[in-house]
Amino acid sequence: MLSAAQRKSLIALHRKSERQAQRLFLVEGVKLVDELLASGWDVECIYAVEGWASCQPSTVPVVRLSEADLSRVSAMETPNKVLAVARMSSELSPPSPSGLVLALAGIRDPGNVGTILRLADWFGVSHIVASPDCAERFNPKVVQASMGSVFRMPVHVIELAQYFEQIADGVDVAAACLHGENLFSLAPREPAVVILGNEGQGIPDSLARYVRRRITIPGVGRAESLNVAAAAAVICAEWRRSSLARM
Amino acid sequence: MLSAAQRKSLIALHRKSERQAQRLFLVEGVKLVDELLASGWDVECIYAVEGWASCQPSTVPVVRLSEADLSRVSAMETPNKVLAVARMSSELSPPSPSGLVLALAGIRDPGNVGTILRLADWFGVSHIVASPDCAERFNPKVVQASMGSVFRMPVHVIELAQYFEQIADGVDVAAACLHGENLFSLAPREPAVVILGNEGQGIPDSLARYVRRRITIPGVGRAESLNVAAAAAVICAEWRRSSLARM
Repeated sequence: MLSAAQRKSLIALHRKSERQAQRLFLVEGVKLVDELLASGWDVECIYAVEGWASCQPSTVPVVRLSEADLSRVSAMETPNKVLAVARMSSELSPPSPSGLVLALAGIRDPGNVGTILRLADWFGVSHIVASPDCAERFNPKVVQASMGSVFRMPVHVIELAQYFEQIADGVDVAAACLHGENLFSLAPREPAVVILGNEGQGIPDSLARYVRRRITIPGVGRAESLNVAAAAAVICAEWRRSSLARM
Repeated sequence: MLSAAQRKSLIALHRKSERQAQRLFLVEGVKLVDELLASGWDVECIYAVEGWASCQPSTVPVVRLSEADLSRVSAMETPNKVLAVARMSSELSPPSPSGLVLALAGIRDPGNVGTILRLADWFGVSHIVASPDCAERFNPKVVQASMGSVFRMPVHVIELAQYFEQIADGVDVAAACLHGENLFSLAPREPAVVILGNEGQGIPDSLARYVRRRITIPGVGRAESLNVAAAAAVICAEWRRSSLARM
């Protein structure tokens, strides 16, 4: 049985301001909570319906609640048995670029950000830098769409102009856009930072002077553009293609 | 001003059963309605707030309504000025496979189906066949995520086993899965049908006997899988890579 105070504090974590103030976030569903418990991240508490048990050993306290209470505090449309409150890791400055780094510029859709975390994890992206106006990594929809990759893929929130001021000259900074070099006929270099912009607005003008090349995924020209997460998948695959082909 | 009957009939089109019974569907927002009017699809009526005008010439009747009424009948979280009621084109049997065809097996998430329509359009996929349990092409969320590609990309709804029974022996039928041939080291052939399955359930057993090869997008192995639309993007790009590289 949940107290009114517990309900209120869980619902408060649907809001970014409260998550950031408390440094806590929600992780929901059987599979993701198992991934969380296996991840090494600090977990404050688990709220679960009767019968739920993790396949991960854990000493985290479990509060039992009804399906109805779970629905009340869940951020999901169809809650799935369990919800955990996890502690955010400390914010670290981004390391020097190595391998492939993605820079997300104003990507506001949480589904897209979560999907990008997941595919970056799949393709071995070293880390992600994200402008402060991107959907927050700890947004419940980002956590969900990342399918657990949020626990593995380092994301550094930083003003991108400030980030690009700091990085070394030898790093290839490429911007994904609609009228650039053909992705499939260039030779990807590393270390590289690939900038992915907001679908409506593209790459911000303030970043133009840091961009060393513009790259485009060629298409047959009927659709106007690709979804940003689909574009990210194709770019990461191409960047890693020669090493992936040997796997 | 909308009548109660108009409101009711528009809201009814949020449901698949009603869309299929009426052969009508909703298209929302300034950009998509412009694409609809340019597409040649039959449009029954447009409902728009004062001040909306299309950049496309059109003889479709326009009913003016308030922002409040638009919110009431819209299927979107944030309605955008205009909503059109369009007529579904007639269902045709799928043609013989040519070039690259995608077969969607039980992909239920409408965002994923819409994103796949959009990227299939981008990469010049010939057509799509979809099992009846996929998210419906005319679901408002599919229409939205397709960004207009729903008007261009032919989608044929059919039991996939029945479809594969009909196609010629020379067609390469490939299934995307987690443990198959490395996508980046095979030579894509055409005509080909690539089967994309439900993320949870994979490719249905009932289709196994039609599959001529299993293909996998290699990853570094941290994430368990890729989002199905991200996987579709990488596969379509790879299939078309040699011709795209020359563009």
